[in-house]
Amino acid sequence: MRIAFLGLGSMGLPMARNLARSDHNVAVWNRTVSRTNELDAVEVAATPAAAAGGADVVITMLSDDRAVDAVTLAEDGLAAGLREGAVHASMSTISAAQSRRLAAAHAEHGQRYVAAPVFGRPDMAESGALWIVAGGDAGAVDTCRPVFELLGQGMIEAGAEPEHANVMKLAGNFILVAAIEAMAEAYTLVRAHGIDTAEFHETIANRLFQSPIYAGYGGMIQAQRYEPPGFLLRHGLKDMSLALRSADEAAVPMPLASLVQHRLLSAVARGWGDIDLAGLGRVAAADSGDNTPS
Amino acid sequence: MRIAFLGLGSMGLPMARNLARSDHNVAVWNRTVSRTNELDAVEVAATPAAAAGGADVVITMLSDDRAVDAVTLAEDGLAAGLREGAVHASMSTISAAQSRRLAAAHAEHGQRYVAAPVFGRPDMAESGALWIVAGGDAGAVDTCRPVFELLGQGMIEAGAEPEHANVMKLAGNFILVAAIEAMAEAYTLVRAHGIDTAEFHETIANRLFQSPIYAGYGGMIQAQRYEPPGFLLRHGLKDMSLALRSADEAAVPMPLASLVQHRLLSAVARGWGDIDLAGLGRVAAADSGDNTPS
Amino acid sequence: MRIAFLGLGSMGLPMARNLARSDHNVAVWNRTVSRTNELDAVEVAATPAAAAGGADVVITMLSDDRAVDAVTLAEDGLAAGLREGAVHASMSTISAAQSRRLAAAHAEHGQRYVAAPVFGRPDMAESGALWIVAGGDAGAVDTCRPVFELLGQGMIEAGAEPEHANVMKLAGNFILVAAIEAMAEAYTLVRAHGIDTAEFHETIANRLFQSPIYAGYGGMIQAQRYEPPGFLLRHGLKDMSLALRSADEAAVPMPLASLVQHRLLSAVARGWGDIDLAGLGRVAAADSGDNTPS
Amino acid sequence: MRIAFLGLGSMGLPMARNLARSDHNVAVWNRTVSRTNELDAVEVAATPAAAAGGADVVITMLSDDRAVDAVTLAEDGLAAGLREGAVHASMSTISAAQSRRLAAAHAEHGQRYVAAPVFGRPDMAESGALWIVAGGDAGAVDTCRPVFELLGQGMIEAGAEPEHANVMKLAGNFILVAAIEAMAEAYTLVRAHGIDTAEFHETIANRLFQSPIYAGYGGMIQAQRYEPPGFLLRHGLKDMSLALRSADEAAVPMPLASLVQHRLLSAVARGWGDIDLAGLGRVAAADSGDNTPS
Repeated sequence: MRIAFLGLGSMGLPMARNLARSDHNVAVWNRTVSRTNELDAVEVAATPAAAAGGADVVITMLSDDRAVDAVTLAEDGLAAGLREGAVHASMSTISAAQSRRLAAAHAEHGQRYVAAPVFGRPDMAESGALWIVAGGDAGAVDTCRPVFELLGQGMIEAGAEPEHANVMKLAGNFILVAAIEAMAEAYTLVRAHGIDTAEFHETIANRLFQSPIYAGYGGMIQAQRYEPPGFLLRHGLKDMSLALRSADEAAVPMPLASLVQHRLLSAVARGWGDIDLAGLGRVAAADSGDNTPS
Repeated sequence: MRIAFLGLGSMGLPMARNLARSDHNVAVWNRTVSRTNELDAVEVAATPAAAAGGADVVITMLSDDRAVDAVTLAEDGLAAGLREGAVHASMSTISAAQSRRLAAAHAEHGQRYVAAPVFGRPDMAESGALWIVAGGDAGAVDTCRPVFELLGQGMIEAGAEPEHANVMKLAGNFILVAAIEAMAEAYTLVRAHGIDTAEFHETIANRLFQSPIYAGYGGMIQAQRYEPPGFLLRHGLKDMSLALRSADEAAVPMPLASLVQHRLLSAVARGWGDIDLAGLGRVAAADSGDNTPS
Repeated sequence: MRIAFLGLGSMGLPMARNLARSDHNVAVWNRTVSRTNELDAVEVAATPAAAAGGADVVITMLSDDRAVDAVTLAEDGLAAGLREGAVHASMSTISAAQSRRLAAAHAEHGQRYVAAPVFGRPDMAESGALWIVAGGDAGAVDTCRPVFELLGQGMIEAGAEPEHANVMKLAGNFILVAAIEAMAEAYTLVRAHGIDTAEFHETIANRLFQSPIYAGYGGMIQAQRYEPPGFLLRHGLKDMSLALRSADEAAVPMPLASLVQHRLLSAVARGWGDIDLAGLGRVAAADSGDNTPS
Repeated sequence: MRIAFLGLGSMGLPMARNLARSDHNVAVWNRTVSRTNELDAVEVAATPAAAAGGADVVITMLSDDRAVDAVTLAEDGLAAGLREGAVHASMSTISAAQSRRLAAAHAEHGQRYVAAPVFGRPDMAESGALWIVAGGDAGAVDTCRPVFELLGQGMIEAGAEPEHANVMKLAGNFILVAAIEAMAEAYTLVRAHGIDTAEFHETIANRLFQSPIYAGYGGMIQAQRYEPPGFLLRHGLKDMSLALRSADEAAVPMPLASLVQHRLLSAVARGWGDIDLAGLGRVAAADSGDNTPS
């Protein structure tokens, strides 16, 4: 199969590397071309359209709605190069509305569209251990399946509407961010009472929740160490804004999502957009008068 | 060892049963005496003071601050019967302030006090699988250790200040309730978009978080089934109010704790205090205009 | 002067009537043409472009961003008819971003743009007592001045950036909605305690705040009567969403704005979008278990 | 009439001075006795009991529940000195629960109790322009009436239950604090967009709301000047905590009250408890990354 991979960021690069190691032919494109030097055994294309030419599946892994829109629909965008019947699998975390627009645009070109956002951080991308939420026409999803198997440890079926996959991804990220905010507040409380936070963290992560999510993010909050970042706080803000937009569309009030959105916004406003998402711990600490640099 | 056990509610009864099965001598007391019929091989006392007479360790497992206060400090309370040097282990979820008061009152009588609240639901009490957070003088905690080993799968050391154990317990419960509120909102969002909530729940519980907490509470929210209750919603409200009080004492703003507190209060106001804590899902559904009876 | 007035809703109609009574020549356009029968002494145009032809000032008073966008920039939109140098005064409550887009589009046509949203309800539009917040090039604002004097009791200068007028209007509406939510909660509290809410309302409106806003909205909340609506609750929701978007752009966390946004969203979700904005009182009552129909 | 006045803080001193200027006999007591030097024509008592001896009406104007409790019920408290049938008018902002306790305690002594908290700042106390919310037995309130007329510009009748006056006062303060938080966020938004906040403030205070409350607090927020304080921020925090307690008692969820409570708590945690209540503006500014000292 011929695969085009567009977007070689912290997630995209290890994903593309996993594909390059397979028997498939892989073409890549990235806005900053030097980034392609990190990959062997791939063809480097000059434009998204060129990369998409001849591909069976084109994957986009880009930062946000706007980037996916441009890379797909610009004059030299992938839609201009993709043959009829081929599939665009959009694996970025984007809005449901953007997915809807892309699906419609591809349909006009006789192309197929699958929304396939992922759960997992860069190390999971590296080891092919992502969870992939796939939404779209069953045949189109089937076409992508062998590719997804190289990238992830499993697939979650979101049904025939591509945008449903985006809503599931955003809802999942929201639950994650809520857990981080809860730990941020609770660990601050425990610390303010002069209690050993390491013992508390152990209790929460390994006894009460028994969850790697709590172990990972909670560990950073406990240590008050938010760098180097795994998942950027400002990306978390973007995701919460998209989640709230999906909430507005469906008329579902989400007070907790509103809360974490403005907490993240406050972090960005204070200049902490480029630390890890766990940095909500720094907001909680600062708001309680604890400005320990970390 | 001679053990007195006061309070045979949904948690206390299975705990007392585990003690009654051991080699220790066990005396019990309960406000509603008929409840003691559920236990074999125990001595039934007429008053807390009588139960405490001759005991090495007295355990209280009662509903709230007020109940523990009364059972401990009333004229025929346990403090009136307990010998010098013996230990009162308070295993209820009570406020840090109440723990402080009890510690002081026992010290005046030459008695010792350990705060030992537990994580776990009735089925875990049944199987002796609770997690016990123990705070207090190291010697007093050591005295309780063989008893705690019969009740729980492990102990978490909160240090020499009894009230630290209470703060840890309340902070832990807060993280739990926050996770439930997050699921409540997210599952409502997913449902409103016409997405299969069972698949979403599977994703959250078993892939993203891999946590029995998410599996358990999320399962109830997914099914919109909140009865029979395991942990009463109104008890969760009580715990959040106590957590906020600890936050006020330490001047730690906890916006998410405030949010879940008033969500739970709204549930109680709507007549849902006696469903399971997962019933925050019913609040989220109702607030989005979905009044599906459940 | 020749004036075109586009949009004859509950605000637009009385505003247009005030202009029709003056010496100016007035052309009107409305999507539903029958609505123009309510006006004397005006010329009825078939399209926005036709209305704008020959006008010195075109006013739009439409429901939202999308409507203003369409009426301005569609093929037969006002920008297609307006002569060079003439002014489009956008008096609707729209987003700052939309104002920016309109200003740019008009500049390309050599036309001028003023953002001039208003404070006031239909009765104030009727009596020419609106407050008009005007932003844009000083010369363009001066051109509009005689028109604004017919519509309002005064002008608030927002400076040279049109969008600043929109931000001021949205920020003002937010302060208003916050006051309503506060009264909604407080009156519910007072009622739940069995206290006479009429006396409380009198205290708040006429003694503590001495404000017609508190008198008006508070009176509806006190009486739990939200119909007929003056200002639709769902329009308030739209405004709060726009205010939050301006907050996101400027990285200003607004927790209270987030709160009122999701309270209004909940009202809409429960089917109360078409009652008065004061209907936040119904949300507060319902959330406290009081479902008194009203 | 003989009046005893207990508590000569920033509110109590000018109130006592207004009474001292009248024909009544006035005895005063204050914890810090030097403070009594600020008053002429009064008798200084050594204890609350001594001050209350022979009084027809005893007024307490103290900082919080605990202080009123002590001054009333301690061994040398006012209840010990007050004759049967005389009235204790508690004018401090205290909890409804505390009012209930005091009413019961006085009833046991055959004494009468009126709760009479006030709206107004020190300058209004000075000029006898307070608003007095009076709750209690009608006869007892009548006894106080001539005294209240010297202190305030009017009385608000809360009915026969003293605690209703306290709930009304707390609910009123909540509406006030909510208005301040709204201005804090809105002015921060406007400033962040580079808009002239003075013009915005003028619009809000004098056009939209036409309210001295908005003029006063908004003026401080606009100028970002919170000292010298009129009403201490930490007293506002206390009041919001009491309001939330009344909300809990009546099972009324108050999400906005929860929000302002934790915003105030955060201000106190950051060391800003002794600036003016308007200092919520400093919290909003800081959370948006603007740490302008003020």
